[in-house]
Parts: sequence; C-alpha cells; structure tokens
Amino acid sequence: MKQITPLPLRCVRFTDGLPQRMQQLVKEKVIPYQWDTLHDRVSGVAKSHCIENFRIAAGLSQGEFYGNIFQDSDLYKWLEATAYCIEVFHNPEQEAIADSICELIRMAQQPDGYINTYYTIKEPDGRFTTLQQGHELYCAGHFFEAAVAYYKATSKRAILDTACRFADYLTLVFGPGEGQNHGYPGHQVAEVGLIKLYKVTNNEAYLNLAAYFISQRGQRPLYFPMERERPGYKDIFNQPVINLPTYAQTHIEPARQTEAVGHAVRALYMYSAMADLATLCGDDALARACNVLYKSVTQRRMYITGGVGSTYIGESFTGDYDLPNDTIYGESCASVALMMFASRMTSLTGDGAYYDTVERAFFNQVLGGISLTGTEFFYVGPLQVDPDVCRVNPSYAHIKTVRQRWFDVACCPTNIARTVMSIAGYAFGSDGNSLYIHIPFACEIQDGRFALQLQTQYPYGNTLRITALAGDQRIKLRQSAFAPIKTLTLNDKALPITVDNGYITLPALANGDVVLATMDMQPHYVVSHPKVIGNTGKASVMRGPLVYCAEQADNDKGLASLALPEHPSFSEYAAFDHGGAVTLTLMGTKAVSVDEQTLYQNRLPEWEPQKITLIPYYLWANRGEGEMRVYLNVRP
Amino acid sequence: MKQITPLPLRCVRFTDGLPQRMQQLVKEKVIPYQWDTLHDRVSGVAKSHCIENFRIAAGLSQGEFYGNIFQDSDLYKWLEATAYCIEVFHNPEQEAIADSICELIRMAQQPDGYINTYYTIKEPDGRFTTLQQGHELYCAGHFFEAAVAYYKATSKRAILDTACRFADYLTLVFGPGEGQNHGYPGHQVAEVGLIKLYKVTNNEAYLNLAAYFISQRGQRPLYFPMERERPGYKDIFNQPVINLPTYAQTHIEPARQTEAVGHAVRALYMYSAMADLATLCGDDALARACNVLYKSVTQRRMYITGGVGSTYIGESFTGDYDLPNDTIYGESCASVALMMFASRMTSLTGDGAYYDTVERAFFNQVLGGISLTGTEFFYVGPLQVDPDVCRVNPSYAHIKTVRQRWFDVACCPTNIARTVMSIAGYAFGSDGNSLYIHIPFACEIQDGRFALQLQTQYPYGNTLRITALAGDQRIKLRQSAFAPIKTLTLNDKALPITVDNGYITLPALANGDVVLATMDMQPHYVVSHPKVIGNTGKASVMRGPLVYCAEQADNDKGLASLALPEHPSFSEYAAFDHGGAVTLTLMGTKAVSVDEQTLYQNRLPEWEPQKITLIPYYLWANRGEGEMRVYLNVRP
Repeated sequence: MKQITPLPLRCVRFTDGLPQRMQQLVKEKVIPYQWDTLHDRVSGVAKSHCIENFRIAAGLSQGEFYGNIFQDSDLYKWLEATAYCIEVFHNPEQEAIADSICELIRMAQQPDGYINTYYTIKEPDGRFTTLQQGHELYCAGHFFEAAVAYYKATSKRAILDTACRFADYLTLVFGPGEGQNHGYPGHQVAEVGLIKLYKVTNNEAYLNLAAYFISQRGQRPLYFPMERERPGYKDIFNQPVINLPTYAQTHIEPARQTEAVGHAVRALYMYSAMADLATLCGDDALARACNVLYKSVTQRRMYITGGVGSTYIGESFTGDYDLPNDTIYGESCASVALMMFASRMTSLTGDGAYYDTVERAFFNQVLGGISLTGTEFFYVGPLQVDPDVCRVNPSYAHIKTVRQRWFDVACCPTNIARTVMSIAGYAFGSDGNSLYIHIPFACEIQDGRFALQLQTQYPYGNTLRITALAGDQRIKLRQSAFAPIKTLTLNDKALPITVDNGYITLPALANGDVVLATMDMQPHYVVSHPKVIGNTGKASVMRGPLVYCAEQADNDKGLASLALPEHPSFSEYAAFDHGGAVTLTLMGTKAVSVDEQTLYQNRLPEWEPQKITLIPYYLWANRGEGEMRVYLNVRP
Repeated sequence: MKQITPLPLRCVRFTDGLPQRMQQLVKEKVIPYQWDTLHDRVSGVAKSHCIENFRIAAGLSQGEFYGNIFQDSDLYKWLEATAYCIEVFHNPEQEAIADSICELIRMAQQPDGYINTYYTIKEPDGRFTTLQQGHELYCAGHFFEAAVAYYKATSKRAILDTACRFADYLTLVFGPGEGQNHGYPGHQVAEVGLIKLYKVTNNEAYLNLAAYFISQRGQRPLYFPMERERPGYKDIFNQPVINLPTYAQTHIEPARQTEAVGHAVRALYMYSAMADLATLCGDDALARACNVLYKSVTQRRMYITGGVGSTYIGESFTGDYDLPNDTIYGESCASVALMMFASRMTSLTGDGAYYDTVERAFFNQVLGGISLTGTEFFYVGPLQVDPDVCRVNPSYAHIKTVRQRWFDVACCPTNIARTVMSIAGYAFGSDGNSLYIHIPFACEIQDGRFALQLQTQYPYGNTLRITALAGDQRIKLRQSAFAPIKTLTLNDKALPITVDNGYITLPALANGDVVLATMDMQPHYVVSHPKVIGNTGKASVMRGPLVYCAEQADNDKGLASLALPEHPSFSEYAAFDHGGAVTLTLMGTKAVSVDEQTLYQNRLPEWEPQKITLIPYYLWANRGEGEMRVYLNVRP
C-alpha cells in the first residue's frame, strides 16, 4: 500500500464557502489578534508575557518569567499557524514577522541546544527534573511542529536548524543508554514533533527517540513516581489527579493499551504518534493498539460533535458511554488532537472511514471554538448550556457560556488557528499517483501531479463538481457517512458508485472532464446509544457533517421544554452569512405547565405547537449569552 | 393563638405500621450499632474514637485526640437518640449506659464549664480562636439538645446541670459587652440547643444568647474575616468555599435574608432557631424572614424527596430550580434540619401546611438514609444513580451507590436515629386543649389530657380510625396535600370536611366515639417546574407522601430507556415487608435501539411495551447495587 500523505498547503487555493471564510478569518483576524495577545497588547485579557519570556531568555530584555510553565508553546503554535498562512497566502509582511520570531527562538536557545524560557530564566539547574509536570518536552514537540511547518512554507533552514540542534540535544539526554534519562514526556506531543522533524531531515535519531518515548512509557518501575521521590522534587500543579498513572497514559505500555483514559489531549497526541510510528516502522503491535484505542474513543467515549473528555477533573476521559452534555470538558485542543489521530489512521490503513471522525471534530467542536469575529475562543465546548444554572452551580465553573478573549492557560486559541489554516492538508492527500479527496472543499488544486477545480458549497451544499485542468487526473473520492454520494456522473454520464476502503475511484480524467456528485444532505435525527443516559428520549439533528443546536436567540428561553416531533419536516434557510450556512426549522411542541408557580405539581404539562429553529452547533454563542442545546426531547 | 408544642414521646405508643417498625429498628439495631462504632468495636469501618476522646479529656485514658474537630457531636446525637428511646421504651439497661455517658461528659467538662474534647486535649489555649471552623458551638448545641432530651426522658438533672454550667460559661464568653466575644457559631445549631435549654430551665440568658448569635450574624464588619486575619489563625479545613460569606449565612443579617444559600444544614438549623425566636419573642422581622426563606427552600430549591443542597461543593444550596438528580448533595442531615424548620413554622404560625414538608423530608430523604438492617446509612441521597457512571466520572465521587456502614464525617447516622426515635413529637402536638394530628400514625396516646387510639397503615393505608378512650377528646386533624381526607365520619355519620389553617377540627369526642377518615392514596404523576431542566419531559410518581423510584432490581438495567405512559394505570402489591409497604406496577414502554452497537445512529429507537415496577424511594438500595431513578421519561 502506498502511503497517503497530506497535499502541501501551497497546492490548494480555497475558492468559496466555509473553508475560504475560515482561512481568511484566521489570516486577517486570528493570527494578528493572537500576535497582539502574545505581546500583551490586548487590554482586559489574561496576561501572556509569552514573547517577553523569550526576550528575557534571549538576553534582549530584563525581567522575570511569567505565566504557566508551558507558556512557550503558545508562541510555537502561533508560529505554526503563521507558517501555514504564509504557505497558503505568501504574505511577505507576515513572513518578516515570523522570521523575527524564528530568530528570537534561536537567541533563546542555550549553547547545548536546549530551549525553554521557564527553566532558562527561573531554574537553569532544574532541566528535566520533573518530566511529569515540567512540560519541557511538550514545548519541544510544539516547537518541532512549528519549525517543520515554517521550513516547509518558506524553505528557510534557520528555524529547522535551531530545532535540530534542540532535538540533537534531546537524543543525547534521553535514551536507553547508561547515563541517559530513561523518562518520557509528561504531556505527550514531543513524539509527534520529532516524527515530523524526522520526515523532513531523514535523521533516524529523531524517529528513534519518538519510538523510545512511546516504548518506554508504562515500563515498570514507572518513571514518574520515581521522579516524585527524588530529593527536591517540585510539585508544580499540586493536583492529585496528575499522579494517577492513567492521567498521562503511563499505566501500561501504549502498545497494550485498550481504553482511552486520562487527559484527553495527552492521550490523543500519543495515539497520533503511535499511528505515525506504526506507519513508518511497520509496528503491528502499535497498529493494533491504535485500532483498538480508536474504537474506544469513537465508539464509546466521543460526543456527537467530536468533543472528547467527559470531565473537567484532569480534563479527562471517564468511561464508556459517560457523555454528560452539561458538565463535559470537550477541550478544543482534544478535538484538534482527535483530528490528528483519525487522519493518521487513514494514512496507516488507507481506509477513508476514519475521516468521518476528522470531519465530525473539525466542523463541530473545533470550529465551535472560535467566534465569527476571530477574537474569542472556547476552551471547553459544552453541548448544553443554561446560563442561569451555570451561574449558580459550581459544577459548571469550567463552562463558559460565551467565548473568551484569552485564557490563563491559552493552549486552545493557537491550536484552533493552526488547524484551520492547515485544513487543506487534512482535506486532500496524495499517494503520489492518486489525489485523495477526504473532504470536498471548493478549491483549485495545482501541484506537479494534479490540476483540478472543485466547486461545492460543502459542508452545506449537496453537489460537488470536479473539473480536470490537466490530463490523467486520478482521484479517489471519499464516501463519507455524513453526506454519502448518491449520484455520480462523468461528463453527464452516470458512473457506478463503488466504494473500496472508503473511497470511490474515479476513472482517470482527461483535461476538461467534469465529474458531478450529489450528496445526501437531508437533515435527520441522530440518537445516542441507550447507555448515554442523559440522551435517552432525546435526539440531535445533523445535516451532513454538521451537528445542529437550538439557541435561546431563536427559540426563547426554556429549551428544555421543547420537543421534536417523531416525524420531522425540516425547512432550510440562510440566516448566518457564513459560507452558505443553512439554518433549519421544523414544527415541534413546547411543554406549558398548568401552573407556572409550583415547584411540584400533579398534572402533566400541556404541549403546544412550537416552531423550533436549529443552527449549526459551531455557530452557537455568536449572538450573546443564552441557553443552547444539542439534544432535545422527542415527543411522538 | 395558643402555641402548638410536641406531645411528649412518653405519651405515644406506636402500635403498627411504618413508625413502629422504624422505632423498633432504631432501638434494637441502630442505637446499639452506633454505640459500637463510637467505641470502635466495628471492624472495617471508619475509626470514630469519639468515646475515647471523651475518656482522654476526662482523664480516664491516655492518648491523642483523633477524628474531626466536631467528633464530639456524634456522641451527643447518639445520646439524644438514646434519650428518646428511653422515654419511649423505658429500657433500664440503655438508661444505665446513657447514665455512664452523662457522667463521662461531666468528667470531660473543664472547671469553668467548657466542654470540647478536641480543644481540651489538643489546643487548650485555642478555645474560640476560630469560630468559623472550630465547631465548638456546634458541638455545644448538640450537647444541649441531648441534655434536654435526656432530662425530659429520665427527669435526672445531672446532665442538665452539666449543660447549664457549659451554657452559663458561654453566656459569659459571648455577648455584646466589652471584653466579650462578639462572634457567633460557624456551624449553627448552638442557637437551637440554647433555646431548648431555655425552655426547660426558663433561664432567659440562654434565650438571649441564642438571639444574640442570630442578631449578630451578618453585622459589619463581618466577624469571620476579622478572625482569619488574627495572628496564628489556623485554617482547619483549607477549603476556599468556607470563606464565602454565604457559606455559613453571614452575608447579611438573618432577619433580612431572603434566599436559601450556602451550606444547607447550617442554613436550616439557623432558620429553625429563627422560627423558635420568632415564636418565643414575637419577633415579626424574624417571622417574616422565616416565611420568605421557607418559600425560597420549598418553592424553588428543594427536591421532591425533601432533599436539599444541590452541590457537593460546600454541601450547599445553589440557585432557583437548579436541582440536578445525579450530582445532588441532598445530605440526610439537611433533610432532618428541614423537618426541624418546617415543624417550627407550624408552631410559629399555627398553619398545618408546613407539615407537608415535614412529611416529604421524613418519608423520603430521611428514611432513605437508613438501611432495612439499621446498620448502613446514606450521607448523600441522589435521585438518580447509575453505578456504571458513578464508577468512572469523578463528578460523582460524593455519591455512594449503596449505604455505608460509617463515615469519616459521621454526622448523618446519629441525626437520622434521633429523628426517627422522636418522630412522635413531630406527628402529634398539643396546644393544651386540642390534640394536633400532624401525621396520622397507628398508636395509642395516653397523656393527662388525651386518651386515644389511632388505627391506620399510614403512610401506606388510606384509612384512619380514631377511637376516643376518654371523654372530651378535642382533635385537630391535619389535612395534608399528599393524602387529603376525602370522607370523614363520626360513629358512621358523615362529618363535614372543613379545613381551617390546615386542620379539620373534629367535634369533641366522648369515650368510645369512633372517627373514620379515608384519604386519597391514589398513585399519580408529579412533574417539576419547567426550569428544573433535568426533569422536563419526565415525571415522578407519588403515592401519599411517598416518592417512588424505579430500581434495576425490578426493572433490569437501562432505566433511562424506560418511559411512563401519559395515562397510567397503576397496580399495587406488597413486595417489601415494611409496615404495609406498597409496590407499584404499570405498563409503560422501553426504548430498544435499532442498532445496539453504534454510539450514534440515524434512527429513533423502537418503543416496546414494558412493565415498570416502582418502589418507595426510601427503600432503594436495599437489594444490592444497581441503577435507580426517581424521574422517568413520559411518552404519550
């Protein structure tokens, strides 16, 4: 099997619809806004100090480190997003800014290659004394991802060299040898970064270190408890949950793990690295584990929106079918990590079905993390919000009813930005021979091998028109579960819809050939497994890959009293100007209490006809604070 | 208005049904079991050390204090329960044991009257340095309640004298005078205890101190923040929520409080004292506040079972209509305190309607706190339990799926015991002229004024037969909201059902007269206010004052998939041998997924006919661990 790799971003130019809108937003609003927050130029938001930390570490400024121990990663993810933006839009001004950041990072690098502003400024002797909590390898991983992205975008080697110097240093420090550190990251992502670095450098030491981190994890005696017992050990976060072996997935060797447990972002970054290693090294045990863990996540522990992490305690997975809509964590970063894992599963197996999860996470939980203005973000993505309840019950302290301008822990905004800006790499892949259309977006594709035009309003429109702009265009068109292709023509002649490994192989197209696909975009109910006890008797609505929700702005207060009919008749109209966004309405009912004053009464409510309006979940909370619900009662 | 006071327990002999069963259980199982736990003679349960603490403080033993700072209160509540038991059953063996405890407490008393084993053993110089957290006045209040109960039961003055010496000391320490401590209890209950002490001694200093504690609360500058700033202040519990002024209801003067906030037990003990003071002192401002606070609790912040406290964080009230069934706190002690408050509201106003709340709390949440064996207890009383979820989601860490044999904080078991053993004092009152039947229990009443026989299977049976055993028996029979009297006869001749202030005044009965009442005991649905967002589209079932629930033991797993019909037809049968306990069945439906394997599917479930069995809520979790639900979906 030839491996499917992402199409370079430079080869894809979005021409219409949601992806174009989102990329423009990230380019024009999100990246500049985040640049300002990282410089502490935005008033009234949590202080970042991130760039100032680098300036201090680089000797360009005096002062103290400020922020979380993982504060550096915010700059790295911003740089990664900016790199993608430069690759897509070729913006020299942004590139000049990014060059200066690359230089700043280089200046903050220590003579031996080490980079971390917290330890450099505050605890130069404390390096790697707490792998469990210190986040040095986490920051390193995000740095490597950013460096590779920037190198790919600009072909400039400087930042790549900085990264390699750091990675070279890590290969000396960590490993199985005597005198080496036998630990591994407390927060996984170094593995993913090292593998990316390997892919552009072919330096196997990086791949080997990533593999070492994975294989070493869970080995007895466990590393973190030993670390905690060393004299002078510093408990940075002082949260008991962190010490649970499941929290950072150290409870057992990754190749033998069978259930998604612990901190969701850590878990999914690790699974992503495992899938990479399985692909690159042909490691069957890791491949099997990835398959089992993917099922654990997506068949039993994932929200319909692609949110993961059912509890704020440890930002963690809990157990099978425990998916509360209101006390959910559903961190935006975790859904980014789920996209990473699922897309790598397609690379590993060649099976397109995993992309249903990429779409689910992207179009709902990830896009939901960012406001239409591009300057407010969700860290936590609930599926049900009642501001009156959130205000009074401390169980909802982690739930924000509207997006926030910044966070003390600001991992999510830059993570969303880098993901949106690189979505073309998720949407399109190549095995060198065929173009894989994993997600059909309106665009022009121009690359050495492929020249195509795609016209569609996906994820809203139900047609896809592919025009070959050169000869011998070989295309594998994914058949998704959410918007399955129902008719397919080549130059107006019907084509058979034969799906193999999740893809329809189109005939080789000649220049000017036109393929037209129509997809099933009928809105419909989706119900949860009966063990999701908060959703029994309820349904959600999906249309294509988009989950819909009811908002107070359209439906007044009291969403809990709404009921969907058993046999719905949906109407569609455009209410949001957002890439062809479709709003749904249908006639349902609303419970009206016989006595509105009484807490407990002996009569069932009356049910009155009520128009129910549903909007795409990712667009919620763009019209002020109010109730929101994904699942509504169904009443026959 | 003549004040209604509880009938002395000695005058009521239960002859049948639930109250007799429960009193026997407390006498024969609960009190001996708790005696053993307080002596640490029960293996495998949390260590108490309570009696040993007293022995050390009394100089009878050597050792260290062990346990919570409020550990003494466990013995006091045990003594109170035992006092009631002795008053009811005249058991000389128990009285000898209790006498020895009274003597032990006396020996632990310091020369100045002070009693508290923690401070006496561990911090003799720390008395009253942290009223907010030290619980000395809390323990004192429970001691006063116990001492008064024991004095009333036995007419022995020794323990009353010990209590008065302590109370006298407190009247010196606390008060508005220069050099006096201007603080008040961090955990209210001293006020209730002092008022009881006043009632048996007529020493107004005790009443005045209780009134001082209430009037001083909330005065600016707030006492507790000043206390926290004193040098050497010790933060015992280190829980930030404790420092919220609302937590211990210090945010505003009690007379001006309008909403039930903060720690539910503290709040309701305080409201109880406020009602007492309003009654005894004719304080209209307190009476008005009690009325408003009673409405805040019972009209907006109380579970159908009489549970209160919607969050484990601070064991607290949250806000209006925020009544989650699964993450509820619903502490057994809080429902005991609600019974205390509501019954005092009847004493204050003469209105019997408050007794609906006494019944609601007693028959459901309080009785639910104790197992059929008498040796296991609930601290937290959820209305919905799924053990599979509780096991995996740390938001349910406070929820126990089965009753526990003891607790580190063991306030509830003894509180339930004292309440059950004194239930006759709740059920029957007197204004010196008329007997008030607040709750109709099968019993014989013999007191200087009244001689009556009551025959009923209440709360299960629907008839009440009252036979006068002497002449001129004047009776006020409460008309409850839960089991309203539908027919009433005197010697087989119909009587009019005229309700005044919640009571039907019967004609004066001659010796041998028989009054027969029939009550409406039809099971029926009860629905919550639509703002209780977890309960929309659902109903609970009540029969008389009893709330019913579905258990896995009768209905298999998957209670969330059950649906009640809109028009139910209930059958009744006896499944539990418990005072005539009635089990209900009805035909409903159960959702059957089209595809049991899929987390999210596009088809609504099929609904198949399903017999649904419901048992009284208070009997749940007596057949092992399993799912339980009070609210079930309704499907027309």
